[in-house]
Amino acid sequence: MTPAISELIDSVRAALGPKAVITDPTEIAPWLDDWRGRYHGTASAILAPDSREGVATILALAHAARVPLVPQGGNTGMVGGATPPADGSALILSLRRMNRIRSIRPEDGLAIAEAGVILADLHAAAEAQGMRFPLTLGARGSATIGGLASTNAGGTQVLRFGTMRSLIAGIEAVLPDGSVHDGLAALKKDNRGYDLNQLLIGAEGTLGVVTAATLRLVPAITGRAVAWVGLADPETALALLRRLEGGTDRIESFEIIPDATLALVLKHIPGTRAPLESAHEWHVLIEAVTDDPADAESPVELLERLLAPALADGQVADAVIAASEAQAESFWRIRHSISEAERADGPAMQHDVSVPVAGMPRFMVEAAAACEERFPGTRASGFGHLGDGNVHFHVRAPRGIDPQRWYAEEGPVITRFVNDLVVAAGGSISAEHGIGQMKLAELERLSSPARMAALRAIKAAFDPHALMNPGKLVALAPAPLAP
Amino acid sequence: MTPAISELIDSVRAALGPKAVITDPTEIAPWLDDWRGRYHGTASAILAPDSREGVATILALAHAARVPLVPQGGNTGMVGGATPPADGSALILSLRRMNRIRSIRPEDGLAIAEAGVILADLHAAAEAQGMRFPLTLGARGSATIGGLASTNAGGTQVLRFGTMRSLIAGIEAVLPDGSVHDGLAALKKDNRGYDLNQLLIGAEGTLGVVTAATLRLVPAITGRAVAWVGLADPETALALLRRLEGGTDRIESFEIIPDATLALVLKHIPGTRAPLESAHEWHVLIEAVTDDPADAESPVELLERLLAPALADGQVADAVIAASEAQAESFWRIRHSISEAERADGPAMQHDVSVPVAGMPRFMVEAAAACEERFPGTRASGFGHLGDGNVHFHVRAPRGIDPQRWYAEEGPVITRFVNDLVVAAGGSISAEHGIGQMKLAELERLSSPARMAALRAIKAAFDPHALMNPGKLVALAPAPLAP
Repeated sequence: MTPAISELIDSVRAALGPKAVITDPTEIAPWLDDWRGRYHGTASAILAPDSREGVATILALAHAARVPLVPQGGNTGMVGGATPPADGSALILSLRRMNRIRSIRPEDGLAIAEAGVILADLHAAAEAQGMRFPLTLGARGSATIGGLASTNAGGTQVLRFGTMRSLIAGIEAVLPDGSVHDGLAALKKDNRGYDLNQLLIGAEGTLGVVTAATLRLVPAITGRAVAWVGLADPETALALLRRLEGGTDRIESFEIIPDATLALVLKHIPGTRAPLESAHEWHVLIEAVTDDPADAESPVELLERLLAPALADGQVADAVIAASEAQAESFWRIRHSISEAERADGPAMQHDVSVPVAGMPRFMVEAAAACEERFPGTRASGFGHLGDGNVHFHVRAPRGIDPQRWYAEEGPVITRFVNDLVVAAGGSISAEHGIGQMKLAELERLSSPARMAALRAIKAAFDPHALMNPGKLVALAPAPLAP
Repeated sequence: MTPAISELIDSVRAALGPKAVITDPTEIAPWLDDWRGRYHGTASAILAPDSREGVATILALAHAARVPLVPQGGNTGMVGGATPPADGSALILSLRRMNRIRSIRPEDGLAIAEAGVILADLHAAAEAQGMRFPLTLGARGSATIGGLASTNAGGTQVLRFGTMRSLIAGIEAVLPDGSVHDGLAALKKDNRGYDLNQLLIGAEGTLGVVTAATLRLVPAITGRAVAWVGLADPETALALLRRLEGGTDRIESFEIIPDATLALVLKHIPGTRAPLESAHEWHVLIEAVTDDPADAESPVELLERLLAPALADGQVADAVIAASEAQAESFWRIRHSISEAERADGPAMQHDVSVPVAGMPRFMVEAAAACEERFPGTRASGFGHLGDGNVHFHVRAPRGIDPQRWYAEEGPVITRFVNDLVVAAGGSISAEHGIGQMKLAELERLSSPARMAALRAIKAAFDPHALMNPGKLVALAPAPLAP
C-alpha cells in the first residue's frame, strides 16, 4: 500500500466514518474478481459512501491524492469493467450503500433511484405502484441502477422499450474532481449544449460516477403469452418479426435459437424438453404482453391471430403457445440455460455483437460458415436478440482439444476473426456488454483513428489524471503522480 | 481579409473547383444575418462543398490555416447560431449543396439524408414510399437535416415521436481536423464507449460538422382529426392530456393557448375566428391521427370517444372537432399565427423554456403572475407544447412604450427574471431553440460550475483552436494564430 493510498483511506474514514471504509481482506475478496472469474484485481480498501455528498467527498480526496478509483455496483459485468487493477494501485468505490429509491411517481411515469438500488428491488417498487421498469436481465437480483446506466445495459426486453439509454430521463453524477452534475430533472426538451447525461450513460465509470438516475416507468403487465416457433432460417425469422410488428406493438421478446444450440440445452440441462415434437433448423421464442385494460385481445389470442396466417402460408413450420405460466417459464428456461449448457459442453469463445437488423440474418449464416471453414472442427452459431440486431455469437472448440491451450492460443485469433466480420458488416463488437478491459485492445484495433482520437480527447478532458476506472474503455497513460 | 483567409479561399478553390467558393458579396449577403434579423455578421466567402470529402478537405485546410468556420444549413435558427462573427474573422461553410437522400428503405424504416436536404424534401421522399418523417416545424421549407440534427430540433409533433435525438439512428460528421466520424450504421445496440453521435446531436456545429444522418421513418398518416377545446386552466389541460394518453397512443399534438393570446390572433390576423362560441380562459388544440390500417376507430371517432366523458364530467368546458380538413387547417392557423400576432401587437421578450411536464401548469400560472407584478404594465403568458413541458413564454411590453429603449433596457432584465424562474422550477432556458449566441451569457450565468467546466472541457478537447462556429454555445478563448 502506497502512502498516498493509506492516507486517502484515513481521510475518508475521518470524513465519512468507519462504515464508509472496508479494509478487512475477507470482506474485500468477493469484489476483486469479475463474476465469470476471468479477471482478478487487488485493492486494499473498498470505499462505501451512502450519499451523493459522500461520493463527492471521496472523489475530491482521491483527486487531490491522485489515487484511482474503480466504481462498482453489483459486480455482474461481462467484460471486467468493475475489476480493479492487479497491482493494487486503485481502490474500489462501492455504490451499494446508496440504495434508496428517492421517489416514485406513477402519475408521471418516473422514478428516481440511487446508483446502488438493485434492479429487482426497483422492479418490486414499481410493481407495488401498478407500474413497471421494463428492462430486465439475468443478473437482476444483483445488478444495480448505477452499473446498468454506466454500461447502457440491454437484456431480453429491449425490443419494445429500448436499452437503458432510452429509459433514462435524468442522471446525477459526481465528476472526477468531486464536483456534482445534477441532471436528474426529467425534461422532455432541453437544448442547453452538449448532452452530459448521454455522455455519462455507457461511459463505464471512466468519466465520473453515476450516483442516481431518473427512470421511465411504463404500465404494469397484466398478462403474457409465450410462443415457441420452428422455422427454416434467420431470414424467415426476421420476416416473421416484421409481420408480427405490422400487426401489434405488444411483442416484447423475439429470441432466435439455432437447433444445435437447443440440442446442447436438452443434452446438458436436466428437466428441459423440446417445446415442439417436429424438428427444425431454427427456433424462435416470442413473448407478447397485455398492459392496457383497453387491449381487445388477450396475449394468447393475439399470438394465435398473428401466427395463424404464418403457419397457413408456410412461413412458420410449426408453433406452440405455452398453455400455462409454468410452460411459458419452461420455454424461457431453455433460452436462459444456453450459456450454462455451452459451458458444460466444452470451451467456447463468446462474442456480444450487433449489426443493422436487416443484415443480421445474413451475418448469422455467413459468419458461422466462415468461422467453421477458417477454424476446422469448431462449431459457430449466433443466438439471441434478433429484433435488436444483436446476437451472442459463440464459437465452440473442436472436440478433445486442450481447453487452456485453446483459450490462450486459438481463442484470441478466433475473436479477432469474428470481430473483423462484424466490422465488415457495419456492426459493433460490443452490442450490450461494453468494452471494460476485455475489449479494450480490439476497440483500439478496429476503430477509426478519428473515433479513437475523439474517445481519448473526451477521456482526457474529463479525467486528465486517469483516476476514474483506470484501464477500462479507452487507454490513457496515467499522469505522473506529481501534478 | 487577412492573408490566411485569402489563402484558404484560394486553396479551397484549387482543391474543389469554383462552384465550391462564393465570393460575390450580393450572393453572400442573405446569409450574413439570422432570419429574425437580430444578428448581423460578415464573411468574405461562403464555402460550399457538395460531398463529405469536400467538407473534410475544407476542414483540414481551415484547421491548418487556423481560420474559423461557421456551418450553415437553411439559416432558420432562432438564436443566431448560424450567423458569422461581425469582424469577418470566419468563413461560412454552407452544407446546402450536400442535398442527396442517399437511401430510403421503408422496410427498415430508415433513410440516410445528407446535411443539406431540406426537411420538406425529406417529407416528400418519405411520403412517396408510404412512410413519414414525423418531425416538422414552421421552417420546413428551408430548414435542413444538418441544422435540425445540430440543434436537436423539436417542433409541433414531438409528443409521440420525440425530438431529432429520438429520430436519429446514425450520424456522419467531419471533425475539426478534417477526420471523418462515420456513425451512420443504424445499430439498435452499440456499447463501444462514449456515444459520439449523441454528443454531436445538438452541438450546434461547435464540435464538428454533421454531413449526413440516418433517420427513422414511421408509417404514413392516412387520416387526422383536430379538436379545439376550452377549459379552465393549465392544470386541467394536463389532466386532460393524461386522460387522452390513457386511452390512446395516437395523439400527436397537444398545444395550449391562453385566451389573451387567442384574442391577439383574432385581432391582428385577418380571416381568423374563434373555434368556439363560448368564452374560456384557456384553449387546447389537439391532433389525433391514423397510421395503421388496423386502427378500429377513425381519428374523429377516437377524439369523440375520449372527449365525451371529459365534457360530461366538466373537465372540458366546451369542444369542437374540425368537420373538414379546411377547418382543421384554420385551427392550426391560429396556433401558427401567434408570433405574427404578437409582433403586430407590440414589443415582446420571447423565451423558449421547459420544465418537468408535471410542473408546467403551475409554472405557467405563477411565472406569468410574477412577471406582471415585477414589471408593471407587462402582460406575460406561455403557450405551446404542454405535453412536452415546453412553452414559449412571452412577456409583452407595456402599452405606449418606446420599443427600442424597452428592448435595450428592460428586455434583458425581464429575460434574466424569467430564466431565474425557470431554473428555480428545475427547468431549461433552452427547450428547443439551442444556445447559439443569444443565450450564451445566460447559460454561463445559470449553469453550475461543474456543468460549465464539462462543456468547456468537451469543446477544448474537440476544437482546441476554437475554429468551429466560434462564439456559439460555449465561450472558449480562441488559440493564438501561431500554433
